[in-house]
Amino acid sequence: MSYYIGVDIGGTNIVCGLLDAELNLLRKAKKPTGAANGSRYVLGLIASMIDELLAGQGIGRSELGAVGMGNPGFIDPIRGISLSSANLKWENVPVSDWLGELLGGIPVFIDNDVRMYTYGEAARGAGRGYEHVMGITLGTGIAAAMINKGELYYGSGFLAGELGHVPLDGESALCGCGMRGCLETIASATGIARIARERLEQGSASLLGEWFPGDRRSEITAADVSRAYDEGDELAKQVLQFVGRNLARGLAWAITLWSPDVIVIGGGAANAGERLLAPMREALEPLILPMYRGRVAIKLAEMNDDAGVVGSAAFAKARAGA
Amino acid sequence: MSYYIGVDIGGTNIVCGLLDAELNLLRKAKKPTGAANGSRYVLGLIASMIDELLAGQGIGRSELGAVGMGNPGFIDPIRGISLSSANLKWENVPVSDWLGELLGGIPVFIDNDVRMYTYGEAARGAGRGYEHVMGITLGTGIAAAMINKGELYYGSGFLAGELGHVPLDGESALCGCGMRGCLETIASATGIARIARERLEQGSASLLGEWFPGDRRSEITAADVSRAYDEGDELAKQVLQFVGRNLARGLAWAITLWSPDVIVIGGGAANAGERLLAPMREALEPLILPMYRGRVAIKLAEMNDDAGVVGSAAFAKARAGA
Repeated sequence: MSYYIGVDIGGTNIVCGLLDAELNLLRKAKKPTGAANGSRYVLGLIASMIDELLAGQGIGRSELGAVGMGNPGFIDPIRGISLSSANLKWENVPVSDWLGELLGGIPVFIDNDVRMYTYGEAARGAGRGYEHVMGITLGTGIAAAMINKGELYYGSGFLAGELGHVPLDGESALCGCGMRGCLETIASATGIARIARERLEQGSASLLGEWFPGDRRSEITAADVSRAYDEGDELAKQVLQFVGRNLARGLAWAITLWSPDVIVIGGGAANAGERLLAPMREALEPLILPMYRGRVAIKLAEMNDDAGVVGSAAFAKARAGA
Repeated sequence: MSYYIGVDIGGTNIVCGLLDAELNLLRKAKKPTGAANGSRYVLGLIASMIDELLAGQGIGRSELGAVGMGNPGFIDPIRGISLSSANLKWENVPVSDWLGELLGGIPVFIDNDVRMYTYGEAARGAGRGYEHVMGITLGTGIAAAMINKGELYYGSGFLAGELGHVPLDGESALCGCGMRGCLETIASATGIARIARERLEQGSASLLGEWFPGDRRSEITAADVSRAYDEGDELAKQVLQFVGRNLARGLAWAITLWSPDVIVIGGGAANAGERLLAPMREALEPLILPMYRGRVAIKLAEMNDDAGVVGSAAFAKARAGA
């Protein structure tokens, strides 16, 4: 019987999970990434975390089928290279080769984090049982991936799916990518907080102004906006309506071009749940052909923090041909 | 040595082509569709056209590897069924089964017309040599298809790619699909002609007003707008700029979600060439991430009317596993 490892690496933490051949998560470990120490250090740390997980379960390396890893940034999943990651400060790191070597030749497969999250939700979460699964995460930014009958959609340069980086008409907030008015400046946890702050600054009355007086305004998060919404706050309601409507504009294009059976929405801002999804659904209805309307289900992610780890392991299992 | 047949069927005409194993077009035939006579009649007509092509080349049915066919409307390419075609007035016609039977068991593969056009341009036209080929046709409407390493992208229900049917912000023209402001109401041959007529009616001065006085305004076509453009007409220039800018809005989403290496633009309105593409490129630049800008080539179709016939034959050859 074979076991699989899934690794979810971010700028702050590394989470490693040990899974059995049926992709049940047996045990997890979490450590600070320590990216400042460089890629060799980080990959060494991951190798040691994997060995500890195996030892804890009484399993030898020889029983390990493959290792999968979800990375932030741009990845070449065929050659197993992290091309560029702002969070990790990695450029052209041959992750599969180096980590595979540290593990005595065990195959290592990598891809970007939203693809591994989507793979996880498709395999074991809200996308289970659907043939065409689109995943999006609403966090600091917005990211998307598409899986058709188990196969990730890549496009040229593995660059398909940068849903967050198309400017919307009439929007002008500066995006981290350098363009203006990108969907990500609105439909993300960061966007929700920013828009709430801006509307407060324009003088709108809101509980948020009471909770975060003066300079403390900068501390407002998307979660605070949801909390105010639940207290009946009008500004919070308007912000989530505005964000929901703009999210619908992007999803209309994604549904029309990708035709998913299900869209699984995760990431921090997904915690807003129906507060955000209800206005999104209402705005989406007139933006897509009737034939899509009855076809595509829109769901919240189900696996929380485990989607990346389970998805990476499932991806590794599939790529290893097991 | 095997031969292949490609069929391009529209509401008005059927074009059949006979191709050799290297997909060279040996001979073509064209007849009126006669759709009013029903699907059995039309398929019988196609079978007889195929037999005539074979006889003309001195080839027996036994040397035919497969038949491919591009159909207007919605297709199930796996079961070979024309699900719904407004142009042909077909509903759930089992094209592959019926035509295959008429041809004594030769395998018949079908898909929609824009997919076959894209397949043709990818195999032998402007998309040749690219791994990720997006095709669009700007005709009565706008349609799109995506091919990745020889594989068509389908999505749920084979419905991916209805690029023409996403409403644009600020636009409100009624679309044939029942929605308002769809990209197709602008970025199509029909859209170009409509917008030119509307601007004339609003009192703009133009050569088009001289060429088509009074009631004759309704005769203006996209080709006339190009003709006026070449005479230095300001209204024609503004119309093609406006259409180009809106086409860019749709292409920005397609590039971001699909990541093609090349976009091949065909259909009647593509005859506008750089008159339309130059403003489109200018508008596209700030709407896509820099990483896409250097990557995606935008080209005019090269195969004219043959793309559908050659694409259908190439598709049939691939599906037959030859």
